[in-house]
Amino acid sequence: MQSLIGIDLSRMLSGNLGGAGLSRSELDALAPRLEAVRTRLATMVDDGEGTFANTFRRTEPAKGKALADRLAGRFDDLLLIGIGGSTWGTIAIQAALCPAYWNENPALRGGRPRFHVLDNSDPDALRETLATLDPARTVVNLVSKSGTTAETAANFLAVAAWLQAACGEAWRGHVVVTTDAGNGLLQRLAAREGLEVLDIPPRTGGRFSLLSNVGLFPAALLGLDTDALLAGAEALTLDAARAPLAENRVLQASAAAWLWFQRLGSVHVLMPYARRLRYVANWYVQLWGESLGKRVDRQGRVVHSGSTPLGALGAADQHSLLQLFMEGPADKLVSFVRLERFQGPAPIPATFPQDGEVAYLGGHDLAELINAEQESTAEALRAEGRGSRTLSLPQLDAYWLGQLFQFFMLETFVNGELLDINTFDQPGVEAGKLLTYQRMGRPGFAREDRPLSETLAYPTT
Amino acid sequence: MQSLIGIDLSRMLSGNLGGAGLSRSELDALAPRLEAVRTRLATMVDDGEGTFANTFRRTEPAKGKALADRLAGRFDDLLLIGIGGSTWGTIAIQAALCPAYWNENPALRGGRPRFHVLDNSDPDALRETLATLDPARTVVNLVSKSGTTAETAANFLAVAAWLQAACGEAWRGHVVVTTDAGNGLLQRLAAREGLEVLDIPPRTGGRFSLLSNVGLFPAALLGLDTDALLAGAEALTLDAARAPLAENRVLQASAAAWLWFQRLGSVHVLMPYARRLRYVANWYVQLWGESLGKRVDRQGRVVHSGSTPLGALGAADQHSLLQLFMEGPADKLVSFVRLERFQGPAPIPATFPQDGEVAYLGGHDLAELINAEQESTAEALRAEGRGSRTLSLPQLDAYWLGQLFQFFMLETFVNGELLDINTFDQPGVEAGKLLTYQRMGRPGFAREDRPLSETLAYPTT
Repeated sequence: MQSLIGIDLSRMLSGNLGGAGLSRSELDALAPRLEAVRTRLATMVDDGEGTFANTFRRTEPAKGKALADRLAGRFDDLLLIGIGGSTWGTIAIQAALCPAYWNENPALRGGRPRFHVLDNSDPDALRETLATLDPARTVVNLVSKSGTTAETAANFLAVAAWLQAACGEAWRGHVVVTTDAGNGLLQRLAAREGLEVLDIPPRTGGRFSLLSNVGLFPAALLGLDTDALLAGAEALTLDAARAPLAENRVLQASAAAWLWFQRLGSVHVLMPYARRLRYVANWYVQLWGESLGKRVDRQGRVVHSGSTPLGALGAADQHSLLQLFMEGPADKLVSFVRLERFQGPAPIPATFPQDGEVAYLGGHDLAELINAEQESTAEALRAEGRGSRTLSLPQLDAYWLGQLFQFFMLETFVNGELLDINTFDQPGVEAGKLLTYQRMGRPGFAREDRPLSETLAYPTT
Repeated sequence: MQSLIGIDLSRMLSGNLGGAGLSRSELDALAPRLEAVRTRLATMVDDGEGTFANTFRRTEPAKGKALADRLAGRFDDLLLIGIGGSTWGTIAIQAALCPAYWNENPALRGGRPRFHVLDNSDPDALRETLATLDPARTVVNLVSKSGTTAETAANFLAVAAWLQAACGEAWRGHVVVTTDAGNGLLQRLAAREGLEVLDIPPRTGGRFSLLSNVGLFPAALLGLDTDALLAGAEALTLDAARAPLAENRVLQASAAAWLWFQRLGSVHVLMPYARRLRYVANWYVQLWGESLGKRVDRQGRVVHSGSTPLGALGAADQHSLLQLFMEGPADKLVSFVRLERFQGPAPIPATFPQDGEVAYLGGHDLAELINAEQESTAEALRAEGRGSRTLSLPQLDAYWLGQLFQFFMLETFVNGELLDINTFDQPGVEAGKLLTYQRMGRPGFAREDRPLSETLAYPTT
């Protein structure tokens, strides 16, 4: 069995792009810096820092899995409440590993609950969701590191009242809170109200948290193989932390991406050729954008770092974005993801043999078509001097998905190290939050208490 | 009643952005060119060219509506087969005007069919869809201008065989073909097989076609108000074609966008603050990217024009992309879309009054929160010298949605005119198609018959 996902960087190299790409020598010149990153990563894996780099060594997912086993079968619907890093990973896992029509077709679920998400401050979404679900048969997973995120709190206040109205005191049995270990608001609220609590390890930021209880508890409740997700993450992480640079595909790919965006582009397109991976692109957009888009580096220099992540879906978006990728500004790198095997066959029958313009498709399988399209698109871009790379999964299951998630997290971390920025913070979103609190009347956030200029802490130029 | 959608450009102007934005004088200097565009637009509206600019004057949507009325009530499921411009508009209309849980909750549908789409060459999506639907209760709308698009043809060959196996000769009554007027493959196939056909006017390109039968027939079958969609498009178009420049908000906004991307940025973010509008962003990405990303202009000069469209969803993506927008490279314009009124109330109850960090939200409505977040985000960006503009709809219904779609189509057309490119073609996708045909064995497309270099017709540099 192939032990790691495939990573093909050949279409990023100048020799294949008419001189437009990366040279071997500039990649080789990065070796000392990469060696330092590899050492840091190895330390993170081994010393129990509790970051994304050693999820597979930790014990708290076992508690989440045990709770999921206890709850399984008692509920028809799982309602996830959160936003951003608290929900994107779970959304991506569910879409990737559950069949389409999971919610509509009970035969596909094997007794596991339907899956719903409230991840916005949208009044119509809240009202329409609660009008459709039966509170007596719904389990709510509230996911919030701080507990004070306004959108999440507003949805939870409404959903808790809806559960209380329908279930009385029994509402407490319908809520699982996933929040920071420690003494935050939700820990206190859950203790007071008698709610189940799962911890998020303290140094695990939202966008790096999907392989903690944040993503693994709901995945376990849906009947998915969380051990295999972690095993996939482990295999890739140990390789990245231990393989010599010449054989270290994760560090090579990460370094190539960094060089590309230093010199050759500003837009990173993630384009999986599998509908089940469409939300992996959404999760990735947050991971890459929020981690690497930073005003200052760790030396305090103003750098305005970061490239723009753009999610696309093949083959559909060949009919949407490919024209721009081929002929527009040469400012992009396209990262393809392909599956060597799909979940099952989808033969194309020769229904209308007399219509030659389409009859040639008969006798093929759709899997052949979609993979031919991926390869053709990569090759057409190459012929135009436009770079791409291809990640390939032998098949889409929990193990290979775990590797894929971990690849993106590792690469983001490596890029942050090479940029010399803080990969794990997000200071730029505070100004908008402050203004929202002012408008909504949060105590202590009045305009005179917290002027915008102070919170921004930016130079006026 | 307000007669047009709100368009606020103030946060694009240098006076509000610490000098970083557009000046009045450079906007004023565009007046002669805009006057020429306005004249061309007025001609397109009046002379029956059959483009996106005069959908509301045409008669073929009436035939689609009559057919939808005849079919309504006879089917439980509508399966749309197409890709790109043949499906994005309908997906956007359905999501915007039908409640969430349309498919799951029969009480919301009033006897209208559920809505499903096959818009990819994904084998799992095809197999899982057909395993869930009942062919005897399914109507298929096949949408393809040429009829030879590989993904669409492959799905249709499989779905037609599935219908034939279940319904025998009656399968013919389950298919409505929407295709180019004229004598193309699908016109001939439909005539031979006895299928219903709706025409796409010949000069209406896919990404500008949603207000033709492409989008209006399925919308009518779902019970939506297609007349109001067209009336909204009409109101905005007539204003753009007739209002003097000083009062012409559509042309002003379009010119401001053009100037921005000439001088100040390369990424155009469309960020609606309403979950129902999330697929409008996907539709928009194709419209903007494929129309404006061109290698040569109309004089044959190599320009590599176009900016990168990026769909985002507020408020959720404040927790995903806002960090990059605030602190990353200053290469973006954010176009917000907001609703002044949502479909109904979503009060936030004071469920836990003792928890001050969230209790302040009690007594508000979620609509207040989401709109406060939109305004706060625009203002935080402005304080950082980052530009945005805000489109506002009094409410989300077919009329205002028709205006919004038409605004984006008009603006894209105006930008194409100012760039002096062909807005309506997509030559850059041909190379990938050729390679796919070669791999799949389409007759006449063997490597020796059609070498890649010939089809690309690009210079080798």
